Amino acid sequence: MIEVVLLGTGGMMPLPGRWLASAMLRSQGRAVLIDCGEGTQVGIRQYGFGFRAIETILLTHYHADHTAGLPGVLLAIAFAERTEPVTIVGPVGLGQVLQAVVTLAGPLPFPLEARELADGAAFPAGPFLGSALAGDHRVPCLAYRLDLPRAPRFLPERAQALGVPVEQWRALQEGEPVVVGEQVVWPPAVLGPPRPGLSVGYLTDSRPTAQMPAFFADVDLLICEATFADPAQAERAHQRKHLLFREAAALARASRARRLWLTHFSPALTDPARWKHEAEQEYPTVVVGTDGLQTVLRFAEEAEADAPGRESLPG
Amino acid sequence: MIEVVLLGTGGMMPLPGRWLASAMLRSQGRAVLIDCGEGTQVGIRQYGFGFRAIETILLTHYHADHTAGLPGVLLAIAFAERTEPVTIVGPVGLGQVLQAVVTLAGPLPFPLEARELADGAAFPAGPFLGSALAGDHRVPCLAYRLDLPRAPRFLPERAQALGVPVEQWRALQEGEPVVVGEQVVWPPAVLGPPRPGLSVGYLTDSRPTAQMPAFFADVDLLICEATFADPAQAERAHQRKHLLFREAAALARASRARRLWLTHFSPALTDPARWKHEAEQEYPTVVVGTDGLQTVLRFAEEAEADAPGRESLPG
Repeated sequence: MIEVVLLGTGGMMPLPGRWLASAMLRSQGRAVLIDCGEGTQVGIRQYGFGFRAIETILLTHYHADHTAGLPGVLLAIAFAERTEPVTIVGPVGLGQVLQAVVTLAGPLPFPLEARELADGAAFPAGPFLGSALAGDHRVPCLAYRLDLPRAPRFLPERAQALGVPVEQWRALQEGEPVVVGEQVVWPPAVLGPPRPGLSVGYLTDSRPTAQMPAFFADVDLLICEATFADPAQAERAHQRKHLLFREAAALARASRARRLWLTHFSPALTDPARWKHEAEQEYPTVVVGTDGLQTVLRFAEEAEADAPGRESLPG
Repeated sequence: MIEVVLLGTGGMMPLPGRWLASAMLRSQGRAVLIDCGEGTQVGIRQYGFGFRAIETILLTHYHADHTAGLPGVLLAIAFAERTEPVTIVGPVGLGQVLQAVVTLAGPLPFPLEARELADGAAFPAGPFLGSALAGDHRVPCLAYRLDLPRAPRFLPERAQALGVPVEQWRALQEGEPVVVGEQVVWPPAVLGPPRPGLSVGYLTDSRPTAQMPAFFADVDLLICEATFADPAQAERAHQRKHLLFREAAALARASRARRLWLTHFSPALTDPARWKHEAEQEYPTVVVGTDGLQTVLRFAEEAEADAPGRESLPG
């Protein structure tokens, strides 16, 4: 399963009651933060996600509303007594940004690792397989996709039939061959067919590109910027390299995203939910994001056995 | 008069409901900001002080909880369409910090001027005469005093007696001599005695020093850090180079400060007001600061003619 929270849903500037767009994903006790504008640490504290588990921070681009919270978040991670490395991932230009962040933050008690990505890169991101796609903004930017793979089911009846002692099952489950008598038993012999994992797509500060529907194909959740709502602002959306509500929804539909959350609203958009109908035309089940919006994405059988994942606001 | 607001009252990290310690002073439509931790721009917006008028930003020292809000505040000043210079003032090391801030903020549409101060420096700060005193912290830090001078009263009966035409009065009021017939009339001839101005002292992240009572002598308002409340934390206050409530109050008393606001509370201090008695022993009229605390300081005759300045929280 993956826990997801929107720490903020604003673009450009933090407002009283609306933090800057940022999301946090957690799975298996390991966390990934996406973007880190001013005030992101307050949301992490407020929604109870904690700092210690943050392994990786993905930056979509280097405008201050996506980066200026980094000194504070890194100091909060330090205060939470993390000593393992933290990896910062972003497009070209990362070195200069991290140098500035470290100048402001001062010495940190954990190693800070930088991973500058090119278009199309794949990379580890905590428990996820990350991939990056170039966006189309006024500065270099990346869209991200995070996949949580799922191991095939282990089939104990097959292991028994092959005479594998129970104490060797774990090795097979973890993908290691084992020796039974004079035979080698390979994991596929005792594992079921591949099972679909879970995936989250994240796009802020970009126009749509032709590559995006394939990049985000079939994600369980697409978190997508929707800076402007009113179709009368289409020209402005083009100029500023942002998306309209309707364009974000069309992208989600073209990607066959299972769920869609809109975020990164213009400060001038005082009530984003009022414009939901603009997105519903393209994607009827769209959710207009609000700060603190959370969900739990579950693997298929988990979801059947358990309550279905649903959007919720913390109490 | 001087309008003063505490934009935040926290130390180390912003908390939900308590921003990082920062103050803003405004007089004659010109504003000075003191310290700028993460979230300071939210307070400025929330308490209605505006960005356009910010001429000078004073930094007490370069820990992130006092500087990391600078990229956001500078971008907000830009968004408010200021084109006149903004001056950033601080102790040794300012250049490196500003370089980091500008890297994160990106290009700004107004000139950014750096004024690195040594102990004892005097400097202009918007409408105020600023002065700086070295503090005693783990890194170089400065205490600040801002004085708003008051012009002597203009005495029209003397100007009339000396035969100065009314159209020349303004020049005299502004300190310029005027020629009347064959005589030069100098301003002191038509002005009353010197009148006391207004002054605000600001100290965060420092132990007290022997120089401080003279530096803050007779200020109308002292805004003073009080990181720790419990006397049992005296040792910690020494080690971390901070003040106890009682020490802040003793400093205000020794300085003959007319009013005292405490600020910069440890995140562990969940209810600072509960410890007010600790400060009252030394300074009975102490105010334990809260985010958004505001007052208007008035010149003596203004205060008599008008309602007295008083602490207030915005509605």
